[in-house]
Amino acid sequence: MLIGVGSDLRWLTGYAAMPLKRLTMLVVPAKGEATMVAPRLEILAARASTAVGAGLVKLASWEETDDPIQLVAQQPAVRVAAERASRLLVSDRLAAAFLLPLSERVAPARLGLATEVLGRLRAVKDADEVGLLRRAAQAADRVVAGIIGGRLVGRTESDVAREVRTRLEDEGHSEAAFWIVASGPNSASPHHDAGDRVIAAGEPIVLDIGGRIEGYGSDITRTIWVTGGHAEGGPDDTYRGLFAALQEAQEQASRGAVAGASAQDVDGIARRIISNAGYGQDFIHRTGHGIGLDGHEDPYLVAGNEQPLRPGNAFSVEPGIYLEGRYGARIEDIVVCTEGAPDVLNQAPRALAVVSGA
Amino acid sequence: MLIGVGSDLRWLTGYAAMPLKRLTMLVVPAKGEATMVAPRLEILAARASTAVGAGLVKLASWEETDDPIQLVAQQPAVRVAAERASRLLVSDRLAAAFLLPLSERVAPARLGLATEVLGRLRAVKDADEVGLLRRAAQAADRVVAGIIGGRLVGRTESDVAREVRTRLEDEGHSEAAFWIVASGPNSASPHHDAGDRVIAAGEPIVLDIGGRIEGYGSDITRTIWVTGGHAEGGPDDTYRGLFAALQEAQEQASRGAVAGASAQDVDGIARRIISNAGYGQDFIHRTGHGIGLDGHEDPYLVAGNEQPLRPGNAFSVEPGIYLEGRYGARIEDIVVCTEGAPDVLNQAPRALAVVSGA
Repeated sequence: MLIGVGSDLRWLTGYAAMPLKRLTMLVVPAKGEATMVAPRLEILAARASTAVGAGLVKLASWEETDDPIQLVAQQPAVRVAAERASRLLVSDRLAAAFLLPLSERVAPARLGLATEVLGRLRAVKDADEVGLLRRAAQAADRVVAGIIGGRLVGRTESDVAREVRTRLEDEGHSEAAFWIVASGPNSASPHHDAGDRVIAAGEPIVLDIGGRIEGYGSDITRTIWVTGGHAEGGPDDTYRGLFAALQEAQEQASRGAVAGASAQDVDGIARRIISNAGYGQDFIHRTGHGIGLDGHEDPYLVAGNEQPLRPGNAFSVEPGIYLEGRYGARIEDIVVCTEGAPDVLNQAPRALAVVSGA
Repeated sequence: MLIGVGSDLRWLTGYAAMPLKRLTMLVVPAKGEATMVAPRLEILAARASTAVGAGLVKLASWEETDDPIQLVAQQPAVRVAAERASRLLVSDRLAAAFLLPLSERVAPARLGLATEVLGRLRAVKDADEVGLLRRAAQAADRVVAGIIGGRLVGRTESDVAREVRTRLEDEGHSEAAFWIVASGPNSASPHHDAGDRVIAAGEPIVLDIGGRIEGYGSDITRTIWVTGGHAEGGPDDTYRGLFAALQEAQEQASRGAVAGASAQDVDGIARRIISNAGYGQDFIHRTGHGIGLDGHEDPYLVAGNEQPLRPGNAFSVEPGIYLEGRYGARIEDIVVCTEGAPDVLNQAPRALAVVSGA
């Protein structure tokens, strides 16, 4: 395996390397010792990583005018793979700027994705990893509570997003990662960023936020309706109806995320409930994604993924309903599959938060 | 060209798409209209982009269970490239997870990097782009002044880094991008991150920070020496000597960054001065990198790059000297090549900032 900078590298070695245009690459032979190829100016950081520090991984550094691809190709395991035309698996996020010259140098080795090997390994979290995910989820719960309890009407989405970011870190994340604040018609766009739109009374806000603790992510979505304190500012019947279906779908899908159920089964539970309510065509994304050192990783809860869930899998359960141009809603928790009932890491109330916001 | 999410896409279309595991890809034929392949749940954002909004780029969306690689491969220009075994250029950062299946689908087309075409185009900034770089640089200058004027001794690097981040945004960046605070022996590691180390009196701090305004970056490095207010807390003679050589090298290299000089010439100017001072082996990185929508892009000021500088090129000039285990120093400005004298965007004083910091 040839592993570039990113979460695969961090998971394997503990090295949270900076994503640079200078190549850092872990060469992992099928048998024998692994070698990390790293630019000389990153050598102190590489040496401080868990795996290198423990003597489990050798270092091979390159100077500013060296050809790092050549250095990778010269590693014995890579040379053998090229000679025997055997398989070389590269990390999913390896950039074309590295992969294309590498593929020429190692031909006729056959390239594949390291996810084949690492995806399922990384998808089963151990107790330490679940502990970090739980800490992150609880911190995110507190952020949601803080935002729901504050002023929202009359502020721009960006301004609220900035508060989200500060709170994510104040509540214990080592870094904030994303802060979607989608108000009014923007709530119908699942990945709307926060913008200059001013939040008005009488509309929903989809809040989808997360940060990381030691690399492990939180990811929570709650939907708020701000009335501005006006009696007539509450949600209309259509919105109440779709939200009720959404909440039922989210709850049942979470409950169904048991060991042995397939990933697509969980998606199917949510989709069936939403379709029965008449919003099947408005639930335009999968039900969830795995989470760990990557914000999106195996297992994906999507039609077609027959992979059975295993204890230790951690993933989002986040159905949504989006009426384009009008409004939308989403509810999301992080759930861990266990030997018993699913372990729902987020505990912030899931009901539509109808607040004054003024 | 097949352009994935990233700065090439933003530069070509104005679409600052989120980096997702779902494929978004701009298909640019050599002649004729471009098409953006995008997941349905990003369609509102894609449609709002400059190029799509102006009707210059068509949209082709895919549903959650479709195969987006297939949709790209079906585009007429891609089909023709595959049939004729002609060249397809992919964006540099395109991830292996997209590139490997794509390369199978478009074989026998020959793959290359879009940088071949876009690198030199993007490297020449127009007046609007220089304007954004200048605004970012001036904001970064103010951040440096704020940090130098505040308390440093007794704080952790991380704490100072957090202040840097807040200040980067308060001074006008739309987002903070990086915040290196490397104190004492950490200053000898060019890419040291900020950590738990407590800054002590009588040592240097390398501050290398930047943010973005509408995607365009700032990137400044200044070196501070904190005395703690003690008469004996100042820099030793070795440090004063190496800093004087460094400052001379940085100034002369900036002056030498004129149209027609090669990128490696500028590197050579800095390297010669530092080598003459006896620190050639301690200047372990290139002199600079281009900057724009990417924090690191063409042109690179490095030995071997014979590319002549052109008016509109924008790049860092940032020599450094690093005595491993002891201390280091770096000075960095963003410089724009013009028809006349180089336009140095950063104006914060470059001399070693000897301050109490207590």
